[in-house]
Amino acid sequence: MKKDINISEVAKKAGVSIATVSRVFNNSGPVKESTRKLIESIIEETGYLPNILARELAEKRTNLIGMIVHNLTGEGMARTIQGVSDILEEHAFNLLMTCSNGNFESEKKHFELLRLKRVDGILFATRNFTKEHKEIIDKLPIPVVVLLQDTEKEQIPCVTFANYSMAKEAAENLLKLGHRSFAYIGGPEHSANANERKAGVMDALKGADIDINSIPASTGNYHIESGYEGMEAIIKSGKKFSAVIAVNDGMAIGAMNCLMDHGFSIPEDVSVLGLDDTVLAKASRLKLSGVHYSYTKLGDEGAALLLKQIQSESSFFEKKVIPYKVNLRQSVRLMN
Amino acid sequence: MKKDINISEVAKKAGVSIATVSRVFNNSGPVKESTRKLIESIIEETGYLPNILARELAEKRTNLIGMIVHNLTGEGMARTIQGVSDILEEHAFNLLMTCSNGNFESEKKHFELLRLKRVDGILFATRNFTKEHKEIIDKLPIPVVVLLQDTEKEQIPCVTFANYSMAKEAAENLLKLGHRSFAYIGGPEHSANANERKAGVMDALKGADIDINSIPASTGNYHIESGYEGMEAIIKSGKKFSAVIAVNDGMAIGAMNCLMDHGFSIPEDVSVLGLDDTVLAKASRLKLSGVHYSYTKLGDEGAALLLKQIQSESSFFEKKVIPYKVNLRQSVRLMN
Repeated sequence: MKKDINISEVAKKAGVSIATVSRVFNNSGPVKESTRKLIESIIEETGYLPNILARELAEKRTNLIGMIVHNLTGEGMARTIQGVSDILEEHAFNLLMTCSNGNFESEKKHFELLRLKRVDGILFATRNFTKEHKEIIDKLPIPVVVLLQDTEKEQIPCVTFANYSMAKEAAENLLKLGHRSFAYIGGPEHSANANERKAGVMDALKGADIDINSIPASTGNYHIESGYEGMEAIIKSGKKFSAVIAVNDGMAIGAMNCLMDHGFSIPEDVSVLGLDDTVLAKASRLKLSGVHYSYTKLGDEGAALLLKQIQSESSFFEKKVIPYKVNLRQSVRLMN
Repeated sequence: MKKDINISEVAKKAGVSIATVSRVFNNSGPVKESTRKLIESIIEETGYLPNILARELAEKRTNLIGMIVHNLTGEGMARTIQGVSDILEEHAFNLLMTCSNGNFESEKKHFELLRLKRVDGILFATRNFTKEHKEIIDKLPIPVVVLLQDTEKEQIPCVTFANYSMAKEAAENLLKLGHRSFAYIGGPEHSANANERKAGVMDALKGADIDINSIPASTGNYHIESGYEGMEAIIKSGKKFSAVIAVNDGMAIGAMNCLMDHGFSIPEDVSVLGLDDTVLAKASRLKLSGVHYSYTKLGDEGAALLLKQIQSESSFFEKKVIPYKVNLRQSVRLMN
């Protein structure tokens, strides 16, 4: 975490007067082109933010938190934001949110925007954490907590789900019921979370001496239709399976509908499990098996960790992993 | 819409020097208690906002829009925000959001917060628009567009769904299929939208000479469980019905599950329709009938109307109503 520097420090670095720096900021009065470029590069490099109220500068805190999310569809993010709001309200902090749609240029712009609006810290939820994200965060003079991604390697504080372990444990539950032939319906290939879940499932199966190269698999975009199509492709491949694991509820519901449309009974012919436990699991009469983890808790823990960082006036690494529970329901059965 | 006033106008109104007003803002130096109170009341009354950058004051626009939403659960609001974002991006505006949970004190605080953060205009989605909301909006020097509520009476620009008409048309569709005995599962009693939908259904039935006082009805909170419970209470009442209309998809799904658990076949014994058409309608194999209307379009139109108000530098009344379409699917049948 970098410290904010002030106008006189910028002037000193550039070897010019404060008035010159001020003219560059305000675009008022003549400044030599080379001097302007030098000052602009120093501003860029140090992250000095001229466009802030003198009064807000004098105050250390604004009691305002920024939150950048990559999507707002699905109940997960809504519950996360609910968890964040609850904790912030307890501590008399307000929340300003932006939605990036997972677009890196938007994310970059939103970090700048929130900083301009003088937030005390930022909660950052993204699909895939890259070194470009780390560069942005390292330059910020305020703490950032990453949600939904494990940034231990980058030593950036984070709160995440146990994607690998919960997928592994869910698959192990199906193995214990006697299943030996599986199909897998996964998430987008660029998603770190989807890849961790797939790795968990595959490691569980490898551990039971199942040849994972023979497992029919498809990928999709988390939506119901996409689960239906993925399941149909697997059925048409002619490969045998007694259990289907889908990366989330939506795709598991799509897979169930597809299986029934193709004359399979659930769970008599095929057991189905989604690595998720949302409102969709409750929508169908045949109760879908899944893994429960609390998005509200993710939001709670994320907000609490960010407030801790703000109060300590330093950024330190800490990682919180949200607990989970595998729930087997009507959609799976014990093999004979 | 009020005009912003500046520090010298505040000083003039209070009959004091600019330096005195400044001391009150900055809490610096002594000011007589009665003078402080007078200045504070003028600030309150005029909406004068001292806490803003001189530079931002000099600039007319920040190209930033604020949005206050009452909830983030359910795909509706997510799609609305998506629609808003798309339009704002086209016009190089950014979006800052806050979530009020429908709490009036939060809404009030968020209007202030967004104004402090110098947004050019505000999109306001709320459960129920009251005269207290109108008072806040009338004092703001920036335009506000209300989403999801009809504020024609208050002459505040708004974009809304045709709650009454679409509910009426949906009920008329069931009447055309020969249904004469209905049950109704409604939303919360304080919700203006839920009440408009109920009025639409009841007016359609009255128009067909059905005694609406004999119709078994229940209310709920839009969730699946609540639809299940509402349906169960109606079944237990022993009243007869060949068609159930629910205020949204979630409650319609709950009602379908409950009916099937009580041995009813859908649509052979009972037809079911939800005044909604979300992802839940696609989750079940038995396709739920409903009314389609686009939340994305609501967001699009809301953002476009707000930008028009900002560009015209005045606030004028305009109302947009989003079109809808009744979709009859497997869950309803023609009566013999």
